[in-house]
Amino acid sequence: MTHRQIIVKTLPKGPLSPEHFELQEAPRPSPKQGEVLLRTILMSIDAANRAWLQGPTYREAVQAGDLMPTFAVSEVLESTVDRFSPGDIVASEGRWADHICWPAHKVMKLPPVDRLEHLVSVFGIAGKTAFHGLMQVGRPVAGETIVVSAAAGSVGMFVGQIGKAIGCHVVGVAGGPEKCSWVTDHLGFDACLDYRAPGLFKAMKAACPNGVDVYFDNVGGDILETTLALMNLRGRVVCCGAISQYDDAAPQGPRNLPGAVVMKRLRMEGFIVTDFAQDDAKALHALQVWLRQGKLKVEEDVIDGLENAPAALIGLLAGENRGKRMVRVGPDPA
Amino acid sequence: MTHRQIIVKTLPKGPLSPEHFELQEAPRPSPKQGEVLLRTILMSIDAANRAWLQGPTYREAVQAGDLMPTFAVSEVLESTVDRFSPGDIVASEGRWADHICWPAHKVMKLPPVDRLEHLVSVFGIAGKTAFHGLMQVGRPVAGETIVVSAAAGSVGMFVGQIGKAIGCHVVGVAGGPEKCSWVTDHLGFDACLDYRAPGLFKAMKAACPNGVDVYFDNVGGDILETTLALMNLRGRVVCCGAISQYDDAAPQGPRNLPGAVVMKRLRMEGFIVTDFAQDDAKALHALQVWLRQGKLKVEEDVIDGLENAPAALIGLLAGENRGKRMVRVGPDPA
Repeated sequence: MTHRQIIVKTLPKGPLSPEHFELQEAPRPSPKQGEVLLRTILMSIDAANRAWLQGPTYREAVQAGDLMPTFAVSEVLESTVDRFSPGDIVASEGRWADHICWPAHKVMKLPPVDRLEHLVSVFGIAGKTAFHGLMQVGRPVAGETIVVSAAAGSVGMFVGQIGKAIGCHVVGVAGGPEKCSWVTDHLGFDACLDYRAPGLFKAMKAACPNGVDVYFDNVGGDILETTLALMNLRGRVVCCGAISQYDDAAPQGPRNLPGAVVMKRLRMEGFIVTDFAQDDAKALHALQVWLRQGKLKVEEDVIDGLENAPAALIGLLAGENRGKRMVRVGPDPA
Repeated sequence: MTHRQIIVKTLPKGPLSPEHFELQEAPRPSPKQGEVLLRTILMSIDAANRAWLQGPTYREAVQAGDLMPTFAVSEVLESTVDRFSPGDIVASEGRWADHICWPAHKVMKLPPVDRLEHLVSVFGIAGKTAFHGLMQVGRPVAGETIVVSAAAGSVGMFVGQIGKAIGCHVVGVAGGPEKCSWVTDHLGFDACLDYRAPGLFKAMKAACPNGVDVYFDNVGGDILETTLALMNLRGRVVCCGAISQYDDAAPQGPRNLPGAVVMKRLRMEGFIVTDFAQDDAKALHALQVWLRQGKLKVEEDVIDGLENAPAALIGLLAGENRGKRMVRVGPDPA
């Protein structure tokens, strides 16, 4: 029995392109003792995937020839342990592949939901990243001003809506007038600034009359530099990602670092979602409540077919998505 | 009655030079109700003085024509309030001048000490900045590795010695082989690296075999970039100053920011010493204990004469000092 899988053929030095990947037909793996055989249903497409190709991060570096890693929602096909049975829906690290075998102790059983897509978006990595990063790292209080970049993206979309739900003034930054209109009109942010238009500093200053207390940074680079200049004393910068830097072979650092951090006594802090896994239940409960109350709108950008994963990631890095991007590899269980 | 004072004649755009200052003979001020007349004894010379000339920071911007501000230890000559009497030794914000009048509620009476210089160095702004920054922002524990830049400077010297006192591996960074030898041989750091020599990254990697847990940053720029690359997961960067940037009209930011902060979940946090004023008593007690135990060596670099204050600051920015630099304006009280 064979299946399809995608390897990283060569590591990118500059912009990621389809030639860096190769779709292969390969033997379907069989689980060893302690493993489960998983059928991939949905794969999360994240900017962080690109960062993994740059060298060791919070995970081992991906090497040329490796299967491309991802976060995935899957169905258990075979289990060698009592805890899992065929048909279970689970979350785990995965690979860009129709199937993987994975150590059962690293696999998490998921509760039943209306839509499996929600397990990748609002109840998955995107929603949890937004909740933990904003609430536990940024720690805004009602009345404070939050700026979030990549505001129409998977995480930014929830960050801003959570900010509104807790009574903050929320300003997004996104690419292009259409995304910006969607962020204000559909998601309900107080304002959204187009970073591709000239005059971002002036526009942000006007949109944040009381300065910026929390900046949720998904991008780094120029937008970080601009926002730092408008931060209030004791402001907090939630360092969630640096998408503007990943495809850049010679990135420049914000020129006001560390000056602004010293002068304004800022706290800049990086995190990844699993740092707060012990509080996931709290996050999921809050997200469910807000969803039920109509305070969270969920936007999912589902690309069909494993073979389209490279284009889905490349497009995400170019900013073409709105909402949480994922790839559907196979159907829901019957 | 006249006295001497120094104004900021023009604001510097690039390197600070003597022409930016002017020594004047002016009428000696008289205290209004609620003020005290102070005779300046010692003025602290700090890299932060240069930052104040760049625009508003944690204090109002200094404008051309203003008296140059400083932290000072002074003698009360006249008092309009009950709380102070002539002869009291006090600390306050001051000016580069023989005398100032200052609101009594912003003046702090100082305890008797063996040497007034200690009120500027180990028991003054330098010692307290080192203690609060390291212990409350950096929060190292025994066995961790601390790197501190400007290691032979007023704050760095104490940071490293406190680090040793609490059981850390301490590596300094300083300019030139003589300073570096002094930092290891006299102050007892485990190693000190000369940033002017080539190969800082390799040298730091060798000196920090377990990586860097806390970086106490007094300089920003290239040394920050290098140290970020060697930080451990969940490392902390104490942002105390950015002396490498103040004289630079077109500073560059560290290219690995914010990337390294995201990937390693670092916390970068700025502070100034007065943020922790409520804990000054704790700091002073600890510094006294370490001094008595012989764990802290104090180095004071005292320049004589108000007229030499501009050269003292310019020289400090060029890295010519070793230990806490200050200017003696007048004698101790009889």
